[in-house]
Amino acid sequence: MSQPLPLKSFIKRLSKLPGLGPRSAQRVALHLLTERQKAADLQKELAEVLSSVQECSICGNLGLDNPCHICVSEKRRRDVLCVVEGVDDLWALEDAGTFDGQYHVLGGVMSALDGIGPEDLRLKELISRAAENDVQEVILALGASVDGQTTAHIIAQQLATTGVKVTTLAKGMPVGAELDYMDAGTLALALQHRTNL
Amino acid sequence: MSQPLPLKSFIKRLSKLPGLGPRSAQRVALHLLTERQKAADLQKELAEVLSSVQECSICGNLGLDNPCHICVSEKRRRDVLCVVEGVDDLWALEDAGTFDGQYHVLGGVMSALDGIGPEDLRLKELISRAAENDVQEVILALGASVDGQTTAHIIAQQLATTGVKVTTLAKGMPVGAELDYMDAGTLALALQHRTNL
Repeated sequence: MSQPLPLKSFIKRLSKLPGLGPRSAQRVALHLLTERQKAADLQKELAEVLSSVQECSICGNLGLDNPCHICVSEKRRRDVLCVVEGVDDLWALEDAGTFDGQYHVLGGVMSALDGIGPEDLRLKELISRAAENDVQEVILALGASVDGQTTAHIIAQQLATTGVKVTTLAKGMPVGAELDYMDAGTLALALQHRTNL
Repeated sequence: MSQPLPLKSFIKRLSKLPGLGPRSAQRVALHLLTERQKAADLQKELAEVLSSVQECSICGNLGLDNPCHICVSEKRRRDVLCVVEGVDDLWALEDAGTFDGQYHVLGGVMSALDGIGPEDLRLKELISRAAENDVQEVILALGASVDGQTTAHIIAQQLATTGVKVTTLAKGMPVGAELDYMDAGTLALALQHRTNL
């Protein structure tokens, strides 16, 4: 065995992070051992992030405060709730800067393959938030994958009893796309949902 | 700005690790914030690795002891020195398990593009080790890239004065390779250096 034991164990742990494998984990570990100052900085910042960043108990966003700055903001509409799969989706929408309502992070989508059911998601919380007086519309901003769309339909069914309007993101051509690079499914939907000019 | 500041800074730092980019760094950071126990374990192991693993002052290997277990081993030949670019190459050779001499880790190869010259490598240490009485042969086990081969030639020139034999890894077909998948350069070298059956 050529790698010292603690290093071997550290590399194995690194390799289980999303996007990393045994070889890239080894490269990262060797980089950290060569650039000790960078490793120390990374260590410090990880500790800071773990101690300061927390999940918002209302929407599931990550932030320095609980409830998060979006949930407590007076400037944001309380009648529309945007449901996203993860915090990264919430950030992407916030960076786009066109939505001024509240969010609800599901924490995943239902997946038979990965064994993720309704009880693994923040679904019950969503239903009770949607039942609040203020909420008029729930936008299901889930991915256009099979799992995402299945989850959207199940949520829509469960929300039917609350009487709120349930909408979903428009499907069609992304901005800047070339027609001949689009898949048949997208083209069919874009044609079907064509709009007046 | 949608990401909390310490998280943004942590993601930026993560994204500078080899093999990671802004998007994969964000995924890793969100994973660590969701799986807090795993993050704490990773933190602990990184601290342990940084405090226990050190560079061998003789060969440049990483290990728990300095000098490393290879440099102090009585079972390994002291007349042959294998020069490698990095510690990962040393590990690959050790895992192959056929070399029983000593190593010398250069810490990189010369590269005009990356501005890495002889003074950035452990080259002076190599020359003085090669000049020791015991060393009879220096094997240059550097990559078959342009930079690797340039470095090998420069090292060979510098070692010429010491009188030790300088060899390099054989070039040819890798085990299990299909002829029609090989590049022209490899095929030419494999033909040129053909061996008797």
